[in-house]
Amino acid sequence: MVDKNIRIKDIAKLAGVSVGTVDRVLHNRGRVSPEALKKVTEVMEQIDYKPNLIARTLGSNKNYRIAALLPDPKQDPYWAQSNLGITQAQTEWAQYGIQVELFLFDLLDKSSFQKTAHQVYLAKPDGILIAPIFYHEALPIFELFRETDIPYVLFNTNIAEAAPLSFIGQNLYQSGRVGAELLHFGQHEPGTLAVLHIDEDIHDSVHLLEKEKGFREYFQDKGKINFTIIDFILNPKDPSFNNQLEQLLQDNSLRGIFVSTSKGTAVTASFLEKLGKRDIRLVGYDILEENMKYLKSGIIDFLINQNPKRQASLGISHLVNHLMFKKGTPGTDLFPLEVITQQNVDSYLGSGIH
Amino acid sequence: MVDKNIRIKDIAKLAGVSVGTVDRVLHNRGRVSPEALKKVTEVMEQIDYKPNLIARTLGSNKNYRIAALLPDPKQDPYWAQSNLGITQAQTEWAQYGIQVELFLFDLLDKSSFQKTAHQVYLAKPDGILIAPIFYHEALPIFELFRETDIPYVLFNTNIAEAAPLSFIGQNLYQSGRVGAELLHFGQHEPGTLAVLHIDEDIHDSVHLLEKEKGFREYFQDKGKINFTIIDFILNPKDPSFNNQLEQLLQDNSLRGIFVSTSKGTAVTASFLEKLGKRDIRLVGYDILEENMKYLKSGIIDFLINQNPKRQASLGISHLVNHLMFKKGTPGTDLFPLEVITQQNVDSYLGSGIH
Repeated sequence: MVDKNIRIKDIAKLAGVSVGTVDRVLHNRGRVSPEALKKVTEVMEQIDYKPNLIARTLGSNKNYRIAALLPDPKQDPYWAQSNLGITQAQTEWAQYGIQVELFLFDLLDKSSFQKTAHQVYLAKPDGILIAPIFYHEALPIFELFRETDIPYVLFNTNIAEAAPLSFIGQNLYQSGRVGAELLHFGQHEPGTLAVLHIDEDIHDSVHLLEKEKGFREYFQDKGKINFTIIDFILNPKDPSFNNQLEQLLQDNSLRGIFVSTSKGTAVTASFLEKLGKRDIRLVGYDILEENMKYLKSGIIDFLINQNPKRQASLGISHLVNHLMFKKGTPGTDLFPLEVITQQNVDSYLGSGIH
Repeated sequence: MVDKNIRIKDIAKLAGVSVGTVDRVLHNRGRVSPEALKKVTEVMEQIDYKPNLIARTLGSNKNYRIAALLPDPKQDPYWAQSNLGITQAQTEWAQYGIQVELFLFDLLDKSSFQKTAHQVYLAKPDGILIAPIFYHEALPIFELFRETDIPYVLFNTNIAEAAPLSFIGQNLYQSGRVGAELLHFGQHEPGTLAVLHIDEDIHDSVHLLEKEKGFREYFQDKGKINFTIIDFILNPKDPSFNNQLEQLLQDNSLRGIFVSTSKGTAVTASFLEKLGKRDIRLVGYDILEENMKYLKSGIIDFLINQNPKRQASLGISHLVNHLMFKKGTPGTDLFPLEVITQQNVDSYLGSGIH
C-alpha cells in the first residue's frame, strides 16, 4: 500500500488537487467537482497510471474472463484476421489474469449464431466481444445480455439497438459510398456497374445492406448518370455459382464491380483473371494475402481496408480497460476508410500503426 | 525511494528475474544477459513503466530543452500544421519539465535555414527536431550537430547522410509513384500529364525531387504509354506566375496534374475552378482546409495525406522518450501513404488515430 499512497500524493501534486480528491476519483466514491475530475484523469492519462495494476496481478489474483463471439476463422480469411487480433490481445493480456475464450459460430448459419450466443450467456463471462452479423437474430441476444451486468463490445457490425459499451468498426454506409466513388472515378463510357454480394445471406446481413445503401445513394446523389446499377447475391455453395458469375462478367456492358466482402473480392478477381477481363474495374475489401496478389497484378484496382485484426484486438483492449483499469472507453471507435492501391499497399504493411 | 524499490520487485517477479538484474537494466550498469534484458524490457513496456518519472519531475527538477527547427508556419498552412503538432506536444510535456523552443526559418531562403540552424547549435539544447528541407545546406549542419552529443530527429524530409536518432515521415519516392498511379488511373485518352512544383526551389528540395523521381519511374515501368510527361517549376513571387499557370491549364491536351506540395495543390485548384476546367484531374497533398473545400467540390480528385501535425508531435515524443525515459526510438517511422477522397475524408477527420 505504500506504493499506492505515494503515487496518490504524486498525482495530487501534479493535478493541483488534494489527496482526498484523488482518492475519491480512484475509488469512485464521494463527490468530486467536474474540474477536479478532469484534472486528475488528465494527469492519470498523461502518466498512463494503471491503478493497482501490479498489486492486483500479483496479489488478489482477480482474473477476468472475456468471451469473444465471432464466425469460425477457418471459413473466411477475413475472420481469420479478426481471430488473429484476438489471439494477439490474449497473449498480451494473459499475464494480467485476463482469459479470452473463443465462441465460434458458422458464418452461413443463423441458428449457429443464436446457439453460440446462448452459450456465451450461460458461461457468465466478465465481458463480451461480439460480431453481431445477423441483425434479427442479434436483437434478442442483446436483450439477454442486458439482463446481466456483463459489458459487451461490438465489432465489425454496429446495431443501433444494442447499446453496447463500445462499437469498433467503420461507417459501412459511407464505406459503400467510397466503393461507389472509386468505381465511378474516371469512367466515361456508359454501361453497367454491379454490386456483388458473395457468400452471405444479404437479407439479414446488416453490414452488407449498409454498404449497398451507401453505394446506391452515391449514384442517386449524382443525379442523371450513364450507368445502370445492378446487384447480385451469389452463394458459392450453389451448383450454378460458377455459371452465374461467369455470365455476369461476360456482359460486355459491364464497366466495374463493387464486391462487398473481402473473400468475395478474391473470388471475383480469380474469375476476372481466368476470363482475361482486365478492363472491368474491381473494387473490394481488405489487405488479405490473396487480394494483395490481385492488387499487385492489376486485377483488383482498389481495396477498402477494414482492418479486421486491429478491430478485434482493440475490442479486447477496450474491455480490459473497462474491467481492470476502470478506464472510460469511447462509445464508438470508427476507423478511417482506408483506400489501398497497388502503389500504397506496402506503406501500410510497413507502418507501425497497422 | 520506497516507491521505486517496490516497483523493481514487482518487475522482477513479472519478468521472472532477480531484483539485481532489474536494477542493472534500469541503471544500465553491469552485465545482463540478452534473455534477461529482453524479459525485463518486455515487462516494462507492457506495464508502460517510466522509470523515476514522477520522482524526477517533482524532485530533481531536471528540465530538458528541445529545439524545433522548421519553416515559418505563417508562410504555408502545411508548416502551420507541423507547428500545431509541436505546440500540442509542448503543452502535453510541459509539466514534466520539457521545454520546446521554436526556431523558424524562411521557407524560401536557404541562408535563413543555415543561420537558424546555427542558432540552434549555439543554444545547446538537449534534443533537436529538424525539417531539413534544403539538402546541400543541411549536410554541414548535421556535421556540426554530430560534434556535440545532442540527439536529433528528422521529420518531413529524410537525408541519408544525417544519421539521426530517428526519421519520421513518408517514403517520398513511393509517394510520387502513388501520385502517378492516381493520375493515370482510368485515363484512356492520350494527352499530357504534368508534375507541378509551386513555391520552392526544386533543385535543392530533396523531398520534391524524390516525389518527381517516383512519379516518372512509375510511368517508365509502364513501358509504352499514351502520355507526355512534363514538369513545371513555378514561383508565385514571379510576376508572370499567373500567366504561366493559366497557359499550362489552358492546354487542351492536359489530362491531369500532380502537384508536389499542399499549398501548391490549393493554388492550382483555385485556377482550375476559375478557368472552369473540371475535366483535368488534380492529385495533390494534404487535408488542409482549403484543399478540403476543393476536394468536396470535385476540383481536387485525390489528396495524399502526409499528416504533418502527427509527424511533428511524434518527433517531440521520440525525443522525450529518448531523453527522459531512455526508451529506444524507431530509426525510421514511416507513415502510410493515405489516399484521401471526397467520400472518405470525413472518416479521417473523425478518427481517433488522426
